[in-house]
Amino acid sequence: MKSLLFTFVGVVHLLCLSSGKAIYGNGISQRTFQEIKEEIATYGDVAKAIINHAIYGKAQNRSYERLALLVYAVGPRLSGSKSLEKAIQIMYQNLREDGLENVHLEPVKIPHWERGEESAVMLEPRIHKMAIFGLGSSIGTPPEGITAEALVVTSFNELQRRAPEARGKIVVYNQPYVNYSTTVLYRVRGAVEAAKVGAVASLIRSVTSFSIYSPHTGIQEYQDGVPKIPTACITVEDAEMMSGMASHGARIVIQLKMGAKSYPDADSFNTVAEIIGSKYPEQVVLVSGHLDSWDVGQGAMDDGGGAFISWEALSLIKDLGLRPKRTLRLVLWTAEEQGGIGAFQYYQLHKANISNYSLVMESDLGTFLPSGLQFTGSDKARAIMEEVMRLLQPINITQVFRNAEGTDINYWIQAGVPGASLLDDLFKYFSFHHSHGDTMTVMDPKEMNIAAALWAVVSYVVADMEEMLPRS
Amino acid sequence: MKSLLFTFVGVVHLLCLSSGKAIYGNGISQRTFQEIKEEIATYGDVAKAIINHAIYGKAQNRSYERLALLVYAVGPRLSGSKSLEKAIQIMYQNLREDGLENVHLEPVKIPHWERGEESAVMLEPRIHKMAIFGLGSSIGTPPEGITAEALVVTSFNELQRRAPEARGKIVVYNQPYVNYSTTVLYRVRGAVEAAKVGAVASLIRSVTSFSIYSPHTGIQEYQDGVPKIPTACITVEDAEMMSGMASHGARIVIQLKMGAKSYPDADSFNTVAEIIGSKYPEQVVLVSGHLDSWDVGQGAMDDGGGAFISWEALSLIKDLGLRPKRTLRLVLWTAEEQGGIGAFQYYQLHKANISNYSLVMESDLGTFLPSGLQFTGSDKARAIMEEVMRLLQPINITQVFRNAEGTDINYWIQAGVPGASLLDDLFKYFSFHHSHGDTMTVMDPKEMNIAAALWAVVSYVVADMEEMLPRS
Ligand SMILES: [Zn+2]
Ligand SMILES: [Zn+2]
Repeated sequence: MKSLLFTFVGVVHLLCLSSGKAIYGNGISQRTFQEIKEEIATYGDVAKAIINHAIYGKAQNRSYERLALLVYAVGPRLSGSKSLEKAIQIMYQNLREDGLENVHLEPVKIPHWERGEESAVMLEPRIHKMAIFGLGSSIGTPPEGITAEALVVTSFNELQRRAPEARGKIVVYNQPYVNYSTTVLYRVRGAVEAAKVGAVASLIRSVTSFSIYSPHTGIQEYQDGVPKIPTACITVEDAEMMSGMASHGARIVIQLKMGAKSYPDADSFNTVAEIIGSKYPEQVVLVSGHLDSWDVGQGAMDDGGGAFISWEALSLIKDLGLRPKRTLRLVLWTAEEQGGIGAFQYYQLHKANISNYSLVMESDLGTFLPSGLQFTGSDKARAIMEEVMRLLQPINITQVFRNAEGTDINYWIQAGVPGASLLDDLFKYFSFHHSHGDTMTVMDPKEMNIAAALWAVVSYVVADMEEMLPRS
Repeated sequence: MKSLLFTFVGVVHLLCLSSGKAIYGNGISQRTFQEIKEEIATYGDVAKAIINHAIYGKAQNRSYERLALLVYAVGPRLSGSKSLEKAIQIMYQNLREDGLENVHLEPVKIPHWERGEESAVMLEPRIHKMAIFGLGSSIGTPPEGITAEALVVTSFNELQRRAPEARGKIVVYNQPYVNYSTTVLYRVRGAVEAAKVGAVASLIRSVTSFSIYSPHTGIQEYQDGVPKIPTACITVEDAEMMSGMASHGARIVIQLKMGAKSYPDADSFNTVAEIIGSKYPEQVVLVSGHLDSWDVGQGAMDDGGGAFISWEALSLIKDLGLRPKRTLRLVLWTAEEQGGIGAFQYYQLHKANISNYSLVMESDLGTFLPSGLQFTGSDKARAIMEEVMRLLQPINITQVFRNAEGTDINYWIQAGVPGASLLDDLFKYFSFHHSHGDTMTVMDPKEMNIAAALWAVVSYVVADMEEMLPRS
């Protein structure tokens, strides 16, 4: 991917240099790429000032310390919970006290699901209490639980082949971990596929790159016309053990009890703060992370880190007395984990202004040492982002990868707005993701300083350049 | 350590070459080092045969598969439990069916402690249910639990300084992980030190190099004249969180409930099998691992792996029709985790024969890809072991480190018998050690093949050489 990218960008640069205005004469930009490149280069000193302030100056470790204060006070912040409500109120106060502008809350109705008490015990071939997490939106079991024989499969294909065996059983998926976006389909659709062949419940091997007997929860989806069955994740260890037992010919019997329940939608908010643009205040660079989390661990990494480096980006810019030409808008999304509920509401409310969105940014893949920026946008916009990222040469993080990721910014990206996300060590990220291990222990203040510096430089420069990023 | 070692061994070699018989003329060896070196070199083909059989031949993956069968069948094997008893009976059958000689059980009385139901909830500053494991030999709490304020310290020194604050509190140790042997003192002595200053319970940060919210249990020790207080380990994450909360000035209140209880000693056995020596059957090379484990995970790594590569070493040698001059004795210890109880009994029973023990070996630090052998013995014996390890050049694992480790062989080593242990990735080992993560998932069949090959070559060659290893 990297080498392809470099080759491609090389071609773009050559085209730009050789054909001048023609390439950028798309009605948005009236300037040559060379002129834009020269404009970006003028931000070298500003970028250095931001980096110094964030990493070596008074702001160092601030985003980590602010995050610790919040997550120690409220813990994890499940959609519909009192903790999330409290976190939003605290953040509203924090952003006001920080001196940001137009601090306000935008109401959203969000799902309210609770896992309740839950347990799973292997009764045969021997008694073994398993660690589980019910999956978000799952129904519960009857109070006495569901006791049934297990059918262990390693893929949806194997389930199809063995469909006649599935009726009345608990389907146990021991799918190998390939990567998150591929393997997560087992978590999302495991219950539906199991129910289609007559299973009474499903247990899914946690979607993670590494395990110390840690279940990893997440959302799952039912399908109209398919019976709803209870579904939970189990550990990699138990999935592999049951797979091994089944291959030795053992009959496995499991008792599953889940008190999971959905309640009426709850009131919540997207939390917004700004540095209002000096010249084009109606134009926006959006910087974001989500404030909700799963109800396990502390939600420090997913997505406390992303939310707090996004806040930190605005704080750093404000500290230095900078005000970009365009408005820098911080959004802390609500109910991302339930499928980007807050972000969908925000998109509906603000999409009329879509032509004024220059760039949408979200950090939701960790705030460890960044490897670079993931970007989705036109080739022209990508060439500009490459130049912006050159400003981060002092910290040696200049790469622009393909495919910005972020549930919350995806509505805008799909509609043609350039999008950017922060990329770092995904093996590490998915080791702790949606587990009890998502705590301040995995967060590193120095890494957060660097991530915040990158986030601030990119958002500030794109918000301050004379022109918006070009679209396709 | 490595460079020091090499320098030193270089000197030994020079001495040997220059002074000949004088160096080895200690009453045990009558030969020059050069002669011994030449003898060891003659085992090159045997070593290759063992390696080929273990790694590429019919025996490949056997120790992994044998281990999976046992741990899937019985699970973890706590001292005094039915599972351990069952595992010993299965192993007795396994060793007989494998065709080993003199398979027998040597009775030992072992501790019987059970954790019972246990829980810890942080009540203030917010409700948070914590993962805990009561520590082995701990007393329980009253049924209603112990509810008290926490005093969080990061060292025994800090506890001493703050002793006046400790009375009536639950001491929470958030000691940093330095290395196992240093940091484990907090687990072993944490309750005693806390009780000395009037604490009512103690919670110890798990002794591990890495955590995904995983508590790690282990033995602890009370001291005569100091009140016994309940003690458990908590996760690194919770220890760090409470430390952070305390540094923010928060008052922390914890409710601890532990049903831990000690019962009368139980009947158990060390499990023994042999390949009887052809020429010096009374002389012994002892190869070992322990069969008991903690009552968490599957006890697959600690010490299923060590026990099973030790069995595998004898199986490999037998498969190849080899019979060493000395007796190769496999011992699967019982109740190692309770302080080497089975091994102490064995030492008492067999120490009269100590002059006939050439080498005692234990693998109890993982059976991942070995980095080499840890060895304790005279310089002369070390020089011989260096030569033996050269036979493993085909798998490129030839290093001999200092300080053999192994609770069960330590009685012999202290009494002057040369000892060897297997060294591998200790970061990995202590990430899973004594936790629910100690399962077949961390075991790798190919790594076990390699570890078993090394174990078999070393034990066979030392058992078959014309002379015993020289002592100091
Ligand atoms: Zn997230
Ligand atoms: Zn052990």
